Amino acid sequence: MAPNPNPPQEFAALFAKIDELKPKFIERLQEAVAIPSVSGDESLRPEVVRTAHFLKEELEKLGAKDIELRELGTQPPPVANKDLQLPPIVLSRFGNDPNKKTVLVYGHYDVQPALKEDGWSTDPFTLTQVGDVLYGRGSSDDKGPVIGWLNAIQAHNELGLELPVNLVTCFEGMEESGSLGLDQLIAQEAQAYFKGVDAVTISDNYWLGTTKPVLTYGLRGVNYYEISVKGPAADLHSGLFGGIVAEPMTDLVKLLATLVETNGKINIKGIEEQIAPLTAAEDALYDDIEFDVEVLNQATGSQTALYKTKKEILQHRWRYPSLSVHGIEGAFYEAGAKTVIPAHVKGKFSIRTVPNISSEKLTLLVKQHIDSEFAKLGSPNTATVELIHDGDYWVSDPHNSQFTAASLATEAVWGIKPDLTREGGSIPITLTFEKELKTDVLLLPLGRGDDGAHSTNEKIDVSNYIEGVKTLSAYLHYYSKA
Amino acid sequence: MAPNPNPPQEFAALFAKIDELKPKFIERLQEAVAIPSVSGDESLRPEVVRTAHFLKEELEKLGAKDIELRELGTQPPPVANKDLQLPPIVLSRFGNDPNKKTVLVYGHYDVQPALKEDGWSTDPFTLTQVGDVLYGRGSSDDKGPVIGWLNAIQAHNELGLELPVNLVTCFEGMEESGSLGLDQLIAQEAQAYFKGVDAVTISDNYWLGTTKPVLTYGLRGVNYYEISVKGPAADLHSGLFGGIVAEPMTDLVKLLATLVETNGKINIKGIEEQIAPLTAAEDALYDDIEFDVEVLNQATGSQTALYKTKKEILQHRWRYPSLSVHGIEGAFYEAGAKTVIPAHVKGKFSIRTVPNISSEKLTLLVKQHIDSEFAKLGSPNTATVELIHDGDYWVSDPHNSQFTAASLATEAVWGIKPDLTREGGSIPITLTFEKELKTDVLLLPLGRGDDGAHSTNEKIDVSNYIEGVKTLSAYLHYYSKA
Repeated sequence: MAPNPNPPQEFAALFAKIDELKPKFIERLQEAVAIPSVSGDESLRPEVVRTAHFLKEELEKLGAKDIELRELGTQPPPVANKDLQLPPIVLSRFGNDPNKKTVLVYGHYDVQPALKEDGWSTDPFTLTQVGDVLYGRGSSDDKGPVIGWLNAIQAHNELGLELPVNLVTCFEGMEESGSLGLDQLIAQEAQAYFKGVDAVTISDNYWLGTTKPVLTYGLRGVNYYEISVKGPAADLHSGLFGGIVAEPMTDLVKLLATLVETNGKINIKGIEEQIAPLTAAEDALYDDIEFDVEVLNQATGSQTALYKTKKEILQHRWRYPSLSVHGIEGAFYEAGAKTVIPAHVKGKFSIRTVPNISSEKLTLLVKQHIDSEFAKLGSPNTATVELIHDGDYWVSDPHNSQFTAASLATEAVWGIKPDLTREGGSIPITLTFEKELKTDVLLLPLGRGDDGAHSTNEKIDVSNYIEGVKTLSAYLHYYSKA
Repeated sequence: MAPNPNPPQEFAALFAKIDELKPKFIERLQEAVAIPSVSGDESLRPEVVRTAHFLKEELEKLGAKDIELRELGTQPPPVANKDLQLPPIVLSRFGNDPNKKTVLVYGHYDVQPALKEDGWSTDPFTLTQVGDVLYGRGSSDDKGPVIGWLNAIQAHNELGLELPVNLVTCFEGMEESGSLGLDQLIAQEAQAYFKGVDAVTISDNYWLGTTKPVLTYGLRGVNYYEISVKGPAADLHSGLFGGIVAEPMTDLVKLLATLVETNGKINIKGIEEQIAPLTAAEDALYDDIEFDVEVLNQATGSQTALYKTKKEILQHRWRYPSLSVHGIEGAFYEAGAKTVIPAHVKGKFSIRTVPNISSEKLTLLVKQHIDSEFAKLGSPNTATVELIHDGDYWVSDPHNSQFTAASLATEAVWGIKPDLTREGGSIPITLTFEKELKTDVLLLPLGRGDDGAHSTNEKIDVSNYIEGVKTLSAYLHYYSKA
């Protein structure tokens, strides 16, 4: 995908300035990537905190006001160091004009672990340009987008151009480790630091493929369940007890087998009725999206796709529920052979939820299903099912003012309308912002589908990074006029 | 169970001598237990070897000939120390009179691991008498019986009484770690050191309960299988791929669910027809056995018994096959929640085999079953099933000359006919001796069902130990005359 050769006249100077600042922008990302801010590694916590300070200094240079590194207290167990402090949230503000709209931009400055010996071609914490690609941990997830916002502000500053909106930053340092403390902070600041926010923009996902920009308007939720089957007081030897006791594993595999068919059909009664009907308008959104079954087969390295057409695949990934069996706790799991009769086993499965499946109702249906299937077994064991955690689905109107502004911005930069996509996974913070700030949320990804966010050789293409800064900038302008 | 107050006159002197030597016999066991011969702990290998030398010295003192510590070479991987030597087999011979029968006695001088902090009330490697019970690792499994044979010889020696049979010892030091090297040694010595052996006697199991002596004439075999289901090339995220790919776990739990019913009924066609019919004579063997469902419930700490009557329980433990599902390799198995779609999962199950189920035919039936059930799923994944290992069942004539001699000996010592039992598990060495030496094998246990062979506070009752020495002795006399 090449950038639009003829961007709208109104952005000529801004886009030219961004192109001019490209070396500076790459340097800034380099500095950010150089700090190994791995939130999942307790020993690297000082580096995560150092990244917050780095951002604070950059924000100061760019003229941000009310900069705060908001402390979130100690990290709850399990932790090796009981006094481990959570990394702070970086709050700051550009402009406070009551006549302007206010946009909150969210991103995270922590990263996934990365070791050269995992198979990286370059040092993961040295941003390295090879051709038109920048390799480094966090380049795409999510330091690239976070620094992207700073770059957009710098471009405005250097042109003496006022930002068209008030901008509030909310950058966290625990996203890769469960966003501990963030929900509470958002709730607490909804009527304080975040008061007056009109729109939230999150750049923490990816294009569907590698060539066409997207805007993301939906996410599936997830309800995670555990079926617990208990029998004997302790594990038994199958030589001594095989054939004379009711084995919990026998019951558990039978229960797990009732949940879903090989073709993906969920057998739990009452779920299908809750799925929002597919309207012609929604169905049409899939027509232009760039995708095919080969992209899926390539991603899975196999021929295990359950559907052949683009629409079926994407709709089953994005707008229909799915059920996956993840594993069993308490049974034998190693290589080789062990003749154990496990006494207490826990089967794990989850259901990806979509509009309009309610978590509470789903849990009720799951319990009814397990109770009824277990009763059929006539087992002397006991079986219970429990919701381990849930996160709601999210769906937005892809034609609201934010999406419209982002779509226009994408067209200005790339010369093409973005695909309107959803995602099969969840980004729980989306829902928290929507609920607590009572605003719309836009997911505006910068990177490509093959950026390898959580794997080795994570990268961002130079064009995605630089055109991304233009897109973020143009989006603010379009949105200010919406 | 109190010993017979009026043993046959012919054993009066012998039994009196054994009673007289009780302190010496306990002291000898104490010395054996004091050496922590844990074969599963590489760092304790010198202690295992030291125990072999201790036995050698004791055998020398007792007048054994041709004593050999037969080396078995280095232990095959996985081992930390590549040059780790296997502990030797202790071979020795008492008497070589062609006019006498020759009895080979097997036992093992290695033990299970034991740490005081695991919950032992006394130091596990200090044989400690509390009331009429001797606590210590190996007291019952299997140093008690091994030392028991030495004690029997000492009693004869001190009376100037010739052993009524030629006796060959075969004591190994790797029983708790797979009896590495023993099969080959037996095959190799069948026509050499073991030439002329008429009968093999193994004391390495237990009474069924705590009050009545038993002789054991049968063991189930075991065929261990692994179903491998492969789909995607690597584990996938259920948010991104749930609902659009065929998940190997979905297929695997369905396959595992087809194998066996909660009530223990095996669903694999063709197995039932192979089970030897229950004759009236065999059925009658169960009449007098001391056992009831409460013993089973106590052992499992639950009310999960599939049968209520003694006969049903014991027959399903000993003479009918059973199928246990042990676990899954490759799936999520930890506490908590992980939203993984495992790419390659292996389901483990085993079938306990009984006369006349052939291992080869069983494997064929298992393959047919899995192939046919997998075909029904219509899955794009692949599924295969593989035999991981097998060990044959064993059953002997409980009225042959060895069993008859052991029964008479038990009656002489305890004043009661022993129960004739089988076991649900396997003792593979039984089959090896039978096959290689072409002799009958007798399982003649000394300890009680609650000795805790592999758990904390392992013990042997003083009466079982001392009356056991009498039983071994009397057995040799009765067998010599058979």
